[in-house]
Amino acid sequence: MEAIGKKVWAIAEGYIPPFGTGPEPEFTSHEAACMLNTSDEDAHVEIILFFEDKEPIGPYHITIPARRTLHLRFNNLKDPAPVPRGTGYASVIVSNVPIVVQHTRLDSRQAANALISAIAYPAS
Amino acid sequence: MEAIGKKVWAIAEGYIPPFGTGPEPEFTSHEAACMLNTSDEDAHVEIILFFEDKEPIGPYHITIPARRTLHLRFNNLKDPAPVPRGTGYASVIVSNVPIVVQHTRLDSRQAANALISAIAYPAS
Amino acid sequence: MEAIGKKVWAIAEGYIPPFGTGPEPEFTSHEAACMLNTSDEDAHVEIILFFEDKEPIGPYHITIPARRTLHLRFNNLKDPAPVPRGTGYASVIVSNVPIVVQHTRLDSRQAANALISAIAYPAS
Amino acid sequence: MEAIGKKVWAIAEGYIPPFGTGPEPEFTSHEAACMLNTSDEDAHVEIILFFEDKEPIGPYHITIPARRTLHLRFNNLKDPAPVPRGTGYASVIVSNVPIVVQHTRLDSRQAANALISAIAYPAS
Repeated sequence: MEAIGKKVWAIAEGYIPPFGTGPEPEFTSHEAACMLNTSDEDAHVEIILFFEDKEPIGPYHITIPARRTLHLRFNNLKDPAPVPRGTGYASVIVSNVPIVVQHTRLDSRQAANALISAIAYPAS
Repeated sequence: MEAIGKKVWAIAEGYIPPFGTGPEPEFTSHEAACMLNTSDEDAHVEIILFFEDKEPIGPYHITIPARRTLHLRFNNLKDPAPVPRGTGYASVIVSNVPIVVQHTRLDSRQAANALISAIAYPAS
Repeated sequence: MEAIGKKVWAIAEGYIPPFGTGPEPEFTSHEAACMLNTSDEDAHVEIILFFEDKEPIGPYHITIPARRTLHLRFNNLKDPAPVPRGTGYASVIVSNVPIVVQHTRLDSRQAANALISAIAYPAS
Repeated sequence: MEAIGKKVWAIAEGYIPPFGTGPEPEFTSHEAACMLNTSDEDAHVEIILFFEDKEPIGPYHITIPARRTLHLRFNNLKDPAPVPRGTGYASVIVSNVPIVVQHTRLDSRQAANALISAIAYPAS
């Protein structure tokens, strides 16, 4: 299939709530970058995280196989460093092939969970 | 009326919660692609679903009559296969006339429901 | 100030929950088109509603004064017809000057309310 | 890094709930403009607020340092005037370098909080 999307995306909102309630991992407070690679090539993706009070961290290296989606939880990023909880951040996502990116958060700090989702910003 | 929108859309986020609470069908956990066809022609739409660990499924064939909206629940897709519950997916929506697409999920796993909505990505 | 935005917008998602809980009007289940007119001219706006099973209704005529925002509740539209509750719909918003449009719903069917918001589709 | 984004953004939706529940400041009802400056220059940002029934207020002056994000709570704007609670408003955000802007609200009027987020409108 044709490669749909852009190669550079940005998500200005980022915040992993520092705690949660309910059975894990479904109800763990988390943030995800939902990424779709419709192309027939693997997408090699680099993620850079930006903070309010320190230099950016990254890149994190991720592969989205050809014709696959990846719902990546920022919670699971480890290398070069885990994402701090309870801290505002933002992210830039760069891919070698066009992809589509959507941002989602599950906030389960309360028994009644809250969800948000927004399209990421397609830069170029 | 003039045909508004694009012919190719993508939704990177997709997840039908595996259970729900409350009276059905209003409070059934579901995901919907809300599609608007402002044109004076029927829109013949093909939907392809992408997964994290298997090849895409589709196309699903849908018609949106001229000058109508269709709030399609992914839950109701049957042919060529139902959409698995509790599984991350993504979708590409292709129409022969321009349409507008918005994505919504009702998560009723808890008595206090959560809702998300985001504009889909207008590809071309 | 410079006129920011587009003259034609579409919102594919539309649904006014048929009931609500909590003190009115703040907690009335509602949908709103939040519109911003940054220009120095009044914006004369026409809204057309699309349905799943009948012909479009409209136009509804709205004015957004120069340098003002209007958070219009679809619940309050009366002429040529009120918006049916518990029914899927979509909308097209046409203005004589550029405006910006964002869509929001408060669903107060449950004691724990749910909120959604999404940018509308900027058509032209 | 390359400067990603646009220099003029608009958020048509704005409403700071007049009260909240839960521990502050995490659970204070608030609205935020999440802004990302990926460039190597400080971003000098001006925010103008628009209302339904009075002239715009501003500009508010904000700096986002080079390679930083800022999750600005509208609640904290003071000069030239605080943002009224329980009142619809909208905002225009102008920067001297490209930035990315996303809008978020936490509504904690109820014990079960509600969250919304949407990409702002990238004007130019």
